[in-house]
Amino acid sequence: MAGRRPGTPDTRGEIVAAARAELAQRGYDGTSIRAVARRAGVDPALVHHYFKDKQRLVAAALQLPNAVGEVMAPVLDAAYEDVGRTFVHTLLASWDDPANREAVIAAARSGLGSSEQGLLARDFVLNGQIAAVLERHCPDAPPVTSALLLMEMVGLLTSRYLLDVEPLASMPVDSVAALLGPTVQRYLALEASSEPAGA
Amino acid sequence: MAGRRPGTPDTRGEIVAAARAELAQRGYDGTSIRAVARRAGVDPALVHHYFKDKQRLVAAALQLPNAVGEVMAPVLDAAYEDVGRTFVHTLLASWDDPANREAVIAAARSGLGSSEQGLLARDFVLNGQIAAVLERHCPDAPPVTSALLLMEMVGLLTSRYLLDVEPLASMPVDSVAALLGPTVQRYLALEASSEPAGA
Repeated sequence: MAGRRPGTPDTRGEIVAAARAELAQRGYDGTSIRAVARRAGVDPALVHHYFKDKQRLVAAALQLPNAVGEVMAPVLDAAYEDVGRTFVHTLLASWDDPANREAVIAAARSGLGSSEQGLLARDFVLNGQIAAVLERHCPDAPPVTSALLLMEMVGLLTSRYLLDVEPLASMPVDSVAALLGPTVQRYLALEASSEPAGA
Repeated sequence: MAGRRPGTPDTRGEIVAAARAELAQRGYDGTSIRAVARRAGVDPALVHHYFKDKQRLVAAALQLPNAVGEVMAPVLDAAYEDVGRTFVHTLLASWDDPANREAVIAAARSGLGSSEQGLLARDFVLNGQIAAVLERHCPDAPPVTSALLLMEMVGLLTSRYLLDVEPLASMPVDSVAALLGPTVQRYLALEASSEPAGA
């Protein structure tokens, strides 16, 4: 591979390809911007220039809709007692958005249909959206809280878009948020002691 | 197609093939034992002899583990206030069972990876296990209760077995049931009025 070189029209695509190769080989946690830059033969600053952070680079490599990493602002800003409802509302509004919907469904179907891509998407969501929400609202939440939030996201995504489970599939965003918000809120309030020793 | 004939060593397999063709063409609701028998060129009584009821015939046609249709007895017998916990415990114990685990994972992966098989499996679960539980414990539950129970099942199945989300993936059955039971119990208690008009 050539030495470090400045950006060319193809550089962005080469960085994405390098990220995909790193992710395939080392998984989400093992992939660094530095290693992706080395593999692509560019300066790490150039990767930062194109993608800003690892989340956005991984989103591009996994062909996840860019918005996925950026939609959580209302959840971060919500009052604590409203985080559950806002979490469901924000995700659902983003998934329903015609600009994202098809990409979200495709990512879900391929992530659940094949093992490797599913595990990458899982870590992307756990280390991105879910980590940000917990860090802001309940930094001492036990690990099971992250797992339960991911479970609710995957359950809702598959039921509403892949399995068309009515009336959940055609229900307005507000109504789904009202139904599922309390579930998420309860998981946010779990304390470390509520996680069983065997876990 | 030949006229009605008695069972031969291949008859069971021919009935399963006929059921698969009917399901592919007409979906779960449109498939009847009578039509499957007609397509297979056998008497409906022979279909009943091999499969007892439509649920079991569909399970065989979809290659779902037989146990899936038969495991719900503890849930039907549970006291109302314990249905949520028992529901999660019973499903999870059945999925974890080495006799079922691989088939459950394969069914989930292919059902979520491809649209047609997913919709058949959805109707199988909605019309089978979930309908039985609701009929026994809350016959007046609104349609959204079925949808939410299915959502929890799919979320748990994918998180624990397809996406290996820790600590949910390796947590003892009792602990998962304690965490998720209250969620299911809340959905069982929803009343028709709590289902939004827009649904």
